[in-house]
Amino acid sequence: MSEIFWFVPVAGCSALMFAAYFYKQMKQESEGNETMRSIAGYVREGAMAYLKQQYKVVLFLFLILAVFLGILAYRFQLQNEWVPFAFLTSGFFSGLAGFLGMKTATAASARTAEAARTSLNRGLTVAFRSGAVMGLVVVGLALLDYSFWFFVLKHCAVGASEAERVLLITTTMVTFGIGASTNALLARVGGGIFTKAADVGADLVGKVEANIPEDDPRNPATIADNVGDNVGDVAGMGADLYESYYGSIIAAASLGAIAFFHQPNLQWNAVLAPALIGALGIVLSLVGIFQVRVGCVESGKAILKALDHGIHVAAIGLVILSYFLLQWLGLGVYLWGSLIAGLITGIVIGKACEYYTSAEYKPTRLISQQAESGAGPVVIGGLGAGMSSTMIPVFAVVIGMAIAFGLASQFQATAFNKGLYGIGLAAVGMLSTLGITLATDAYGPIADNAGGNAEMSGLPKEVRQRTDALDAIGNTTAATGKGFAIGSAALTALALVASYVQELKCGLMRMGKEFVEINGEMIKTSDVSLVELMHFFEVHLLNPKVLMGMFIGSMLAFVFCGLSMNAVGRAASKMVDEVRCQFREIKGILTGEAKPDYSRCVRISTESAQKEMLLPALLCITFPFLVGICLGVAGVIGLLAGTLASGFVLAIFMANAGGAWDNAKKYIEEGHFGGKGSEAHKAAVIGDTVGDPFKDTAGPSLNILLKLMTIASIVGSGLTLAFQF
Amino acid sequence: MSEIFWFVPVAGCSALMFAAYFYKQMKQESEGNETMRSIAGYVREGAMAYLKQQYKVVLFLFLILAVFLGILAYRFQLQNEWVPFAFLTSGFFSGLAGFLGMKTATAASARTAEAARTSLNRGLTVAFRSGAVMGLVVVGLALLDYSFWFFVLKHCAVGASEAERVLLITTTMVTFGIGASTNALLARVGGGIFTKAADVGADLVGKVEANIPEDDPRNPATIADNVGDNVGDVAGMGADLYESYYGSIIAAASLGAIAFFHQPNLQWNAVLAPALIGALGIVLSLVGIFQVRVGCVESGKAILKALDHGIHVAAIGLVILSYFLLQWLGLGVYLWGSLIAGLITGIVIGKACEYYTSAEYKPTRLISQQAESGAGPVVIGGLGAGMSSTMIPVFAVVIGMAIAFGLASQFQATAFNKGLYGIGLAAVGMLSTLGITLATDAYGPIADNAGGNAEMSGLPKEVRQRTDALDAIGNTTAATGKGFAIGSAALTALALVASYVQELKCGLMRMGKEFVEINGEMIKTSDVSLVELMHFFEVHLLNPKVLMGMFIGSMLAFVFCGLSMNAVGRAASKMVDEVRCQFREIKGILTGEAKPDYSRCVRISTESAQKEMLLPALLCITFPFLVGICLGVAGVIGLLAGTLASGFVLAIFMANAGGAWDNAKKYIEEGHFGGKGSEAHKAAVIGDTVGDPFKDTAGPSLNILLKLMTIASIVGSGLTLAFQF
Repeated sequence: MSEIFWFVPVAGCSALMFAAYFYKQMKQESEGNETMRSIAGYVREGAMAYLKQQYKVVLFLFLILAVFLGILAYRFQLQNEWVPFAFLTSGFFSGLAGFLGMKTATAASARTAEAARTSLNRGLTVAFRSGAVMGLVVVGLALLDYSFWFFVLKHCAVGASEAERVLLITTTMVTFGIGASTNALLARVGGGIFTKAADVGADLVGKVEANIPEDDPRNPATIADNVGDNVGDVAGMGADLYESYYGSIIAAASLGAIAFFHQPNLQWNAVLAPALIGALGIVLSLVGIFQVRVGCVESGKAILKALDHGIHVAAIGLVILSYFLLQWLGLGVYLWGSLIAGLITGIVIGKACEYYTSAEYKPTRLISQQAESGAGPVVIGGLGAGMSSTMIPVFAVVIGMAIAFGLASQFQATAFNKGLYGIGLAAVGMLSTLGITLATDAYGPIADNAGGNAEMSGLPKEVRQRTDALDAIGNTTAATGKGFAIGSAALTALALVASYVQELKCGLMRMGKEFVEINGEMIKTSDVSLVELMHFFEVHLLNPKVLMGMFIGSMLAFVFCGLSMNAVGRAASKMVDEVRCQFREIKGILTGEAKPDYSRCVRISTESAQKEMLLPALLCITFPFLVGICLGVAGVIGLLAGTLASGFVLAIFMANAGGAWDNAKKYIEEGHFGGKGSEAHKAAVIGDTVGDPFKDTAGPSLNILLKLMTIASIVGSGLTLAFQF
Repeated sequence: MSEIFWFVPVAGCSALMFAAYFYKQMKQESEGNETMRSIAGYVREGAMAYLKQQYKVVLFLFLILAVFLGILAYRFQLQNEWVPFAFLTSGFFSGLAGFLGMKTATAASARTAEAARTSLNRGLTVAFRSGAVMGLVVVGLALLDYSFWFFVLKHCAVGASEAERVLLITTTMVTFGIGASTNALLARVGGGIFTKAADVGADLVGKVEANIPEDDPRNPATIADNVGDNVGDVAGMGADLYESYYGSIIAAASLGAIAFFHQPNLQWNAVLAPALIGALGIVLSLVGIFQVRVGCVESGKAILKALDHGIHVAAIGLVILSYFLLQWLGLGVYLWGSLIAGLITGIVIGKACEYYTSAEYKPTRLISQQAESGAGPVVIGGLGAGMSSTMIPVFAVVIGMAIAFGLASQFQATAFNKGLYGIGLAAVGMLSTLGITLATDAYGPIADNAGGNAEMSGLPKEVRQRTDALDAIGNTTAATGKGFAIGSAALTALALVASYVQELKCGLMRMGKEFVEINGEMIKTSDVSLVELMHFFEVHLLNPKVLMGMFIGSMLAFVFCGLSMNAVGRAASKMVDEVRCQFREIKGILTGEAKPDYSRCVRISTESAQKEMLLPALLCITFPFLVGICLGVAGVIGLLAGTLASGFVLAIFMANAGGAWDNAKKYIEEGHFGGKGSEAHKAAVIGDTVGDPFKDTAGPSLNILLKLMTIASIVGSGLTLAFQF
């Protein structure tokens, strides 16, 4: 069974090779005239400068955390000895995924604009293939990182039996996610603050006060805005989805090791299955990517159809091939059902997000209509619609979870751990075709930047229309992508909580507690089931410690959002001041006679982002440790449950409200309810401004928060136990 | 020990007698000139018309629910036989409290304005004593309802032993709260939609578009706005706090019966203690109310000091006397500590809410400052500040809970049930002086209406200044009051969940399940502890059913808010249309030559409120039943935990954000950042508009939602068990 393992790194390498191929192909395209090249150069420069600064801060934080983890592991034996190193590699790969994605995106924007001069199809091809670079880099690097550590641990880990050795390997690997999650959180929050400070600042003074269009070169914040799309929506999203993907695979693998502990002949297969499904997903994503092309029809619908076609090819292929894969691994049809349940849940969430955020449907149009009554009703309407929109995604996850658990446990209470494994597989299923879905996501900001470039370089109107058509679809696919990320987070988080309990068991044994007392009986620690451990630690919902943890957890999700909203607000205020100041002091900006100083705006965004991203990130790393020390295991699990319950719903609410405001504004700009420049439009712009940090800063960070807190709990479990006993 | 019981109804009667006395006193004041009387008449008429309509709908719903409960109880034996009747009485008393409070408030507003012509002190006295009517009516009726049913059940309930009889009485009484909670939720949501539709509509067209001041008689929505203060902030709040107060007492009593089950000599005392503390609180509230007076100094600070003095007298008195009461009841100093922990937690929450919502402090001033950058930053800033403001209240509740539990259990794991009883007492402690704190709350809308009356009748400027000073303090006390309501809800909810588990035990026995199997052993159901029952029903946080319930619960809290926000948005849009239409069609309104048609605006608010309040209310009554049927006990407890974790934090967030926006706007109106009419002011008005449904519709309903869902679960427990076994 060992040979099949090699399919994983091979698929990972192929993904990277195709990424390199697409990258080269894109680079061969013309970057357009000198203006276009110089604007693209500004954006590239700003983005790289930001990323350099960002990675400096991240590196510094990582070194501190690595030392801390090292002390925990080597001085106090409270942590697995591999964690400090793996922490660094997964963080490195996550950062690398973001970097490569951004390098591609900044190179592709002018080329997309240039290609869009020829036709919509050419524009789409360049933008989408460049997006595919990111998608493939993420999945490729994740599987390589996984394969590397799996290989190392497989040869180094020592256990009492083969089954225990497997368990040790997977439990160790779960903790490796902390590096990827920490980097992802910083990338999302920092990038989100950067991009939204620039966007909000540019809109508030440019669109509302000075009445100049979006991406107008006279607006000093416009380059910062374009840089922001790259650092937030590309680098941030890349790191985010790297973390989601990697996390779902290792969480499922760890549950597989637990569920098949007593079936040694199947245990390896269960552990390998998630990564193999990922590898299969890569192959099918590649097939799907080559299927994406539009005919000669120049319309947005054609683009969406083309993208959907590619995704459907990959998804249907996965449904069929994964059946044979799981059969061949001996895991049976029920677990295949769980996997498909996850895939379908993802699709339902995506469709629901589309319904609530696309101007094709009633909720968003209603917000546009409310704009006629003023900004107040627009904001109230968006908040109301966003909150109400949580219903379908939550039910989708709940039902998906029920089906995945029910099928995997074959509806037997005794097969509890298999049910959990089924939920883990559902998360893997949801993200299995990430290679192509992320490509459709990442192409959005590229098209957005291409539009910015076209506007600023004064290209003919039809070019901008084509890039706008590309961009509009990007908004929808971005909403769908966020739905996937948060949906998979909800499923993965449960799997990670189970890993946490498993890690507690290892921790007890490390502490020399050979026996635990449950209901008055002494049971050998190694034989205790996860559910029995929950009883041992008194993790039930009448225990006030659990409830206290839940309150704190739920509060943290809100405070985290509050801090990032405030950060955007503060940074945007600075940006507004700067833009107003430039309009005042540099004479002739508005007439086009003088050039604004773009770099000052980029600097404001960079500095604000770096300063403000640390507190929210540190909050969610430190609280699992603090709560563990003060309230013990019961408090920590309560904490995780509270963050999960609140954060999951909050994330959907914020993503959908933000998306709906954005598209409600666009709908008015298309000429409805008074069109551009009307009072309704001004009101809608205010709604969009509020929605910006919702959908691009706080909202999309929450799914990482959920997982990072769980992994931090796992890493801190030794400390928690040391204080509790 | 039976004699001491009579202290409860006697205190309840005294509260009502003093309320009648204050009411008569107020009625003897002059209602001012004819204009003042006629305006007060309009408001009274609109308010009464609304309440009549509201109670019709409520009565209809109540009859349906009573029949449903009757069928559950008598046809299927799935419910206690007393519930259908008690459901009606507690609903009736809750409605009566709202009605009497509103009758007083509508009679008092013109009289307060007239009294404010003489001096601030006279104005304060009339407004505050009228507020006291409501405070006393609420606590008086609650204790009478309690005494009545306690007396009836004490003579009718039959149990195997005295201890079981007591347990049966208290468990039955907990379910009685469903009537009060249902009415309170409808009153809060309906009243909240009414008042905010009118307020938002009046502000949007009046202040922003037509540039006329607040409460200007030329604004057609102005009477509806004043009516709204009465139906939302008076009748709604009265019903809300009746429910909170009643709920905290019966929940604590029920936990007392469980905790002292094996100490029959103390059980009665533990059951009576919460109501006795309430009775003591009534006496001390009366003392405090008579202490409230300001000297000749005409300033807002003097008013706040006067109110604070009254509250402090009552609180300090309670701290001292409750010590002797609990000692005398033989319950000891530890439980007194729990009670005081609750009292202090309430004060900390109140102060934190004041810090985050008063323009005296940094957070609100920052929002005012952000108004200079536009409406977008104001809204983002308020949302961010509101979310961040949840930290201190949550920590206060967590620490209060820890202390109350720790002291009551004397830090012994074996005294788990006593710890829960301690948490119940903490909730009682927090609300014990409700008689006076509610008086300070209810006086706010009276002063607000007095200001409206003064403005519309064209009274001299200094009168309006005085009523404004009274009103400004009212905003702060209202924020504090909301903090108390939600803080006590968090504590009461845990107590109610414990009652739910207790009710499950009764349900199992009713079904003839004499033994339950726990960890392979058969245990007599009557001997099973609450914690063992949690194990029996598999209510641990790895059970996917628990997690599914949590997701649904958390989602419900958001959807509930979303629906009520949307309702306000829709109703406000209608109001805006109506006001614009009147300005257009009735010539001469703005010049004061023609009178607007106030009644059409009142009708719009009434109809919208009636139509929109049902869906959110029905959601939270039906879901505990549905989840119980689909996911069993584990799902229901997950549901409650999810709603509690999300709803608690969401409620603080919404109340504080709304309060901060309101006061940020007032701060600008005082002349900062450009003052009235500036761009910053317009931006701040938009923030205030968004905050209106936050703080007065969705936010304050959430605390009721938490409890109503728990009680609905208790009522539906028989059904849940029937489906599960």
